Amino acid sequence: MGETVTDKQGQAPPALIALDWGTSSFRAFLMDASGTVLAQAAGPEGILHLPRPGAEGFAEVLAARCGPWLARWPGLPVVAGGMVGSAQGWREAPYAPCPADPATLARAAVEATTPAGVRVLIAPGLLHAPPGAPPDVMRGEEIQIAGALRAQPALAARARFILPGTHSKWVELEEGRITGFATYMTGELFAVLRHHSLLGRLMTEVAPGAEEAAAAFAQGLDLARASGPGDLPHQIFAARSLGLTGRMAPAALAEFLSGLLIGHEVVSGLARTEGTAPLVLIGEAGLCRRYATALAAFGAPAPLPLGNTAPAGLFHFAVAAGLVAAGETTP
Amino acid sequence: MGETVTDKQGQAPPALIALDWGTSSFRAFLMDASGTVLAQAAGPEGILHLPRPGAEGFAEVLAARCGPWLARWPGLPVVAGGMVGSAQGWREAPYAPCPADPATLARAAVEATTPAGVRVLIAPGLLHAPPGAPPDVMRGEEIQIAGALRAQPALAARARFILPGTHSKWVELEEGRITGFATYMTGELFAVLRHHSLLGRLMTEVAPGAEEAAAAFAQGLDLARASGPGDLPHQIFAARSLGLTGRMAPAALAEFLSGLLIGHEVVSGLARTEGTAPLVLIGEAGLCRRYATALAAFGAPAPLPLGNTAPAGLFHFAVAAGLVAAGETTP
Repeated sequence: MGETVTDKQGQAPPALIALDWGTSSFRAFLMDASGTVLAQAAGPEGILHLPRPGAEGFAEVLAARCGPWLARWPGLPVVAGGMVGSAQGWREAPYAPCPADPATLARAAVEATTPAGVRVLIAPGLLHAPPGAPPDVMRGEEIQIAGALRAQPALAARARFILPGTHSKWVELEEGRITGFATYMTGELFAVLRHHSLLGRLMTEVAPGAEEAAAAFAQGLDLARASGPGDLPHQIFAARSLGLTGRMAPAALAEFLSGLLIGHEVVSGLARTEGTAPLVLIGEAGLCRRYATALAAFGAPAPLPLGNTAPAGLFHFAVAAGLVAAGETTP
Repeated sequence: MGETVTDKQGQAPPALIALDWGTSSFRAFLMDASGTVLAQAAGPEGILHLPRPGAEGFAEVLAARCGPWLARWPGLPVVAGGMVGSAQGWREAPYAPCPADPATLARAAVEATTPAGVRVLIAPGLLHAPPGAPPDVMRGEEIQIAGALRAQPALAARARFILPGTHSKWVELEEGRITGFATYMTGELFAVLRHHSLLGRLMTEVAPGAEEAAAAFAQGLDLARASGPGDLPHQIFAARSLGLTGRMAPAALAEFLSGLLIGHEVVSGLARTEGTAPLVLIGEAGLCRRYATALAAFGAPAPLPLGNTAPAGLFHFAVAAGLVAAGETTP
C-alpha cells in the first residue's frame, strides 16, 4: 500500500485525529468539529507490520504519520478503532456486550499514552453471546456501523448491515443499537480453498469472459439456494467435478466457487435476519456488487450501498466519548 | 511408508496379482483363486511419487515390487485400481456411468503393457450425473465397495456406504449396483482450515484429555445438527470465537471443528440417502469411530464397520473381467 497525504486549506480548525488501525494498514484522518475530513495519512503499518513490537512501535507509527498535525495543533484529541484494540494491539479494549451503540463503545474504551504524552482513546470490539449458541465477536465493524448511522440517521430505527470480506459480518440494528450479529468466514474460505486445496488445481489465473463469469457465479448461487443443511462440504466438490468432466471451463471455476460460497452466506444470513428492515452493504465496491447480485437472485430487497464509513464512525465514537463537542452534522 | 513383504507358504497356487495404486502409496496382493491373499508388497510409490515420470515409471515400480512373483509365476493376470487409472495415471480409464457393478467396471477397464510384456487391467472410476445437479466422480472407492459386496454378499440387496477421508464418499447401492453417490470434502476442509486459516492460530499441538476431546467433538456435532442451509461459513468461526472468549480450551478447538465438519457431512448425507438401507463404514479405524459417534448422535442405525476391502474388491473386479475363474468364496 502506498502512502497518501492530502491537505485541504481554508477549512474550519481541526477538532480530532481519528485512526482506523487494522491488521494490515494504518489510516489517519484529521477532522473538524462537524466531522469533515480535512487531511488524511495512510501507510502499511497495520498492527502486524509495526517498525518495532509493542507500545513503542504504535507510538512511533503515530508520530511518523501524524507528527505534523500533533505539532501544529497540540492537544487535539485522538481516537482509534479496529485491531489496535485487540490483544495483539496497542492496548486491549475488551469486547463490549450487545446491545451496543456509540455510547457503549465510549464507556468501554481504553486509553494508551505515547512517551510524548499523546493520549489515544481506543474503541472496544463487540461480543454477541446469544443463549445456546457460540459467542461471536467483531472489532472494527462496529465503527463502520456507527459511521453509517451518522451518514444515514434514518437507518437507526431498524436496519440489517452486511459487511462482506474475509470475515463477513451480518449485523442487526434496532433503535440505534446493535442487537446481534454473525460472522461468516466466506472470504477466507474462498482463499484457502483456492490456494491450498485440490480445488485450486484446475483453476487458472486466466480471467473468464464477463458473460462466462456471470453464468458460473449464478450457477454457484443456484446451487446454494437449492442446498439443505450440511450440503456445503459436498457442493464445493462441484468446483472440481464440473472442471474434470469438462462441463465448466477452468477459467470459470473460481467464479462458480465464489457464487457458491457467497450464496451460502446470503441464504443463511437472510434466514437469520428475517424481516423487513432495510439492507445496507458496506465495503469494497466490487465485492459489494457480488453480494448485491446474490441478494437480488434470492429475492431480497435491493440493498443500500455505502462506501468506507470508518472516518464518520470514529467521529461518532469521539462525540459519544465527549472528546468533540459535536457541531453541525455534515455527513 | 515402510515396505512390507510377507509370504505365506503351503497355500493354494497364486491366481492373481492385484494392485491398489493410489496417489501416495502402492500396495500389491498376490492372491489364490478363492481371493485369499498369499503375499503382499507395499511402498510409497503412489502415482505422484514415481521414480520417473510416465509409463516407464509405473512399469519400474511394478517390476521392483512384484518382480519375484512375476518371475516365479509368469503369465499371472494383473489388475489395478485407484488413481493409477486417472488422467495422471499409467493409462486413463475414463469414468463409467452409474448405475454400475463389477461387470460395468470390467467392461470399461483399459489395459497397460510393460516393456517386458506384462499386461495390467486397470479399473475405471465412476461418474454420477444426476439431472439438475453437478456431476460427481469417484476413483478407487468403487473397488472398496466391490470388496465389501464380496465380503458381505447380503449387502448387495440394498446398502448405504460411507467411506470417510480427505474426500468422503456416501454411496447408495441397490441390487448389487451403485446407483448414486456424493463426495464431501470434509477431510480436506478440516486440513486447510487447520493449517492455512486463522482458525488454526488458536489451536495447539497439545492433545486434549479424552473427556475434553469428546465434549468438544459433541459440541461441534450439536451445532451441525442445529444448522440451517448455508450456516457452515458462520459456524466454523465458532472454532475461533469459543477460543477467543475463553469458553473452550485451545487444545479442544480442533476436536470441535472436526465434530462440526463431520456433523455437517452426516446431516447432509443422511438426508440425501434417507431410508432404511443398512449403513456400512469403510476406512481407517479412528476416523470410522468419529463417524460412528456422529451417526449415533443423529439417531442413525449403528453402521457395520469394515476394514480395508480393496484386495477383495480387486479380486471381484478380476473375476468380473474373466481373468480368474472364481473358486470358492472365502472372504
